Amino acid sequence: MTNKDTQYLNQYSGKEVLVTGGLGMIGSYAATVASKFGAKVTVLDNLLHDHGGNRANLTGYENEIQVIIGDIRDRETVNKAVENKDIIVHCAAHVSYTDSMQDPFLDLEINGRGHLNLLEACRYLNSTAKIVFTSSRMRYGSVETIPVKETQPAAPLMIYGAHKLIGEKYQEIYFRNYGLKYTNVVVPNPYGPRQQMIHHRYGLVNWFIRVCMEGGEIKIFGDGEQVRDYIYVEDIVSAILLCGIRDEATGETVNLGNGSGTSLKAMVQTVVQAVGTGSYAHVEWPENYFNIETGDYVADITKAKALGYEPRVAFEEGVKRTVDFYRENRRDYW
Amino acid sequence: MTNKDTQYLNQYSGKEVLVTGGLGMIGSYAATVASKFGAKVTVLDNLLHDHGGNRANLTGYENEIQVIIGDIRDRETVNKAVENKDIIVHCAAHVSYTDSMQDPFLDLEINGRGHLNLLEACRYLNSTAKIVFTSSRMRYGSVETIPVKETQPAAPLMIYGAHKLIGEKYQEIYFRNYGLKYTNVVVPNPYGPRQQMIHHRYGLVNWFIRVCMEGGEIKIFGDGEQVRDYIYVEDIVSAILLCGIRDEATGETVNLGNGSGTSLKAMVQTVVQAVGTGSYAHVEWPENYFNIETGDYVADITKAKALGYEPRVAFEEGVKRTVDFYRENRRDYW
Repeated sequence: MTNKDTQYLNQYSGKEVLVTGGLGMIGSYAATVASKFGAKVTVLDNLLHDHGGNRANLTGYENEIQVIIGDIRDRETVNKAVENKDIIVHCAAHVSYTDSMQDPFLDLEINGRGHLNLLEACRYLNSTAKIVFTSSRMRYGSVETIPVKETQPAAPLMIYGAHKLIGEKYQEIYFRNYGLKYTNVVVPNPYGPRQQMIHHRYGLVNWFIRVCMEGGEIKIFGDGEQVRDYIYVEDIVSAILLCGIRDEATGETVNLGNGSGTSLKAMVQTVVQAVGTGSYAHVEWPENYFNIETGDYVADITKAKALGYEPRVAFEEGVKRTVDFYRENRRDYW
Repeated sequence: MTNKDTQYLNQYSGKEVLVTGGLGMIGSYAATVASKFGAKVTVLDNLLHDHGGNRANLTGYENEIQVIIGDIRDRETVNKAVENKDIIVHCAAHVSYTDSMQDPFLDLEINGRGHLNLLEACRYLNSTAKIVFTSSRMRYGSVETIPVKETQPAAPLMIYGAHKLIGEKYQEIYFRNYGLKYTNVVVPNPYGPRQQMIHHRYGLVNWFIRVCMEGGEIKIFGDGEQVRDYIYVEDIVSAILLCGIRDEATGETVNLGNGSGTSLKAMVQTVVQAVGTGSYAHVEWPENYFNIETGDYVADITKAKALGYEPRVAFEEGVKRTVDFYRENRRDYW
């Protein structure tokens, strides 16, 4: 990280930080990086079956980071967790958009009610905490022009995106009415170490890494020209922590991104090359995927850059680091 | 109604219509008007304490309209209610925006989960029904320019508005993914007969009519120049039924309105004059109201008009009819 980043991150020294969903990929990096910079970190995670939580994600931090196994859907648990915290990173979520269409109620309970639990807890018990909420590019839905600015209309195509949107609105409403400070960060396609590798319903890059590590064949829908903004987990987390500490980010919704787009085909080729095994083939779009295809996506990150954010990990480098990680830690994630 | 309206409404003859929240003000008018035009109408209402449901609203229709006392939050009830329906008017809602800030969870349960119950029921049990959803101008929040078009950004200031917005998004998502037909109608400030008059947390016009009928004094916040788009309940319902029957309205979000704005002061003066008793005085804005003041609101109703909608009841006439109604039926609403 540059000196500028470090300067902001040094302000975490002595801060009380709560990370919800802190045993997941993004949450655990937020926890360990904040801890490295001197924060006193507490993690709340329910380790829900088939979701992203994994105790292995905090290996080596057992003495530094306090872990509460509890559910964002439980008010009493959340009430206790927010006490005395300076900064809250809200990552706890139902993450899969295909699952959100299968069971919209579970998505509503976790991403809707759970988020309200957090905000109500802060409203009554800790109204000075700053909350950074990890929203998703899925809140935009189909986009007409890229790069996508924060002002583009929100037209989510799936329940997951709709509930991420409502989470952003909750944050705005609690800020306006009760002064609860917040930043919404809009995450595009995340990848990197510590993501669950049990099923394919989270990020594709990680899943394709597994497919290649097992010598399989990746299926590319259509010509593979669809563009995505793949962002390495440590870049996401440096932005989250920056937003958590900087007053200039308060009350804002901020796009994160890698600064440029990568086609699906180029992404797959990078993965195949980095792993050294596996292959790919083109197949037709299945009907149910076509309905939820958003079109090309690249984030306009002007606003994030003005706050001091800079993507540092180029896609090839990020994939390499991710492959190295899973080669070493495969037993904890397969 | 004009011949053009009647032509569309005649198509309700023989149609199976479900009205959720059908014992409330808007819902009961949707039910009785559809019934008059030959529809076979079923009403679902939970008669929740302190909400808008009132059996008196269907007086005279006891033989024509089937009433199910049941809750939109209960999946089994909703599953049964949607069977074989051609058109569903979804009015069941937690209506008060002040209540939505006191208890956001109840608002989420009724306006979020309840709406999902309805859509999931149609997804699996009746995917050919057309759903007309009564959204609210509160989904816009602060507006920058009037008249307000449907394309203005949604920035709700309160939980109630946020959940109305999410309801619209649900409709869009189920249409795109499962072909469930819908129209979202965005209602500004409704007034008219059949609204509950027990408390002041619903429409102001009706509440001020009660205050004047009891010889009281209306308090106007600030100078009273804030503009609203007051719409008479029968105009709302003619638009709802139009959207329910016209294919051109499918997949659309449509603003309703009276075609022009009225200042708070002019509204109050009209009410005082129509009632013949009562008075008004100017008072300072209380702090908690200032936070949720949206600024002037007048709907751009170009889109609704293109569908055949025309506001027919001028504000003075609507207030007169409302006063007459409560003079005759006071015992059922006080």
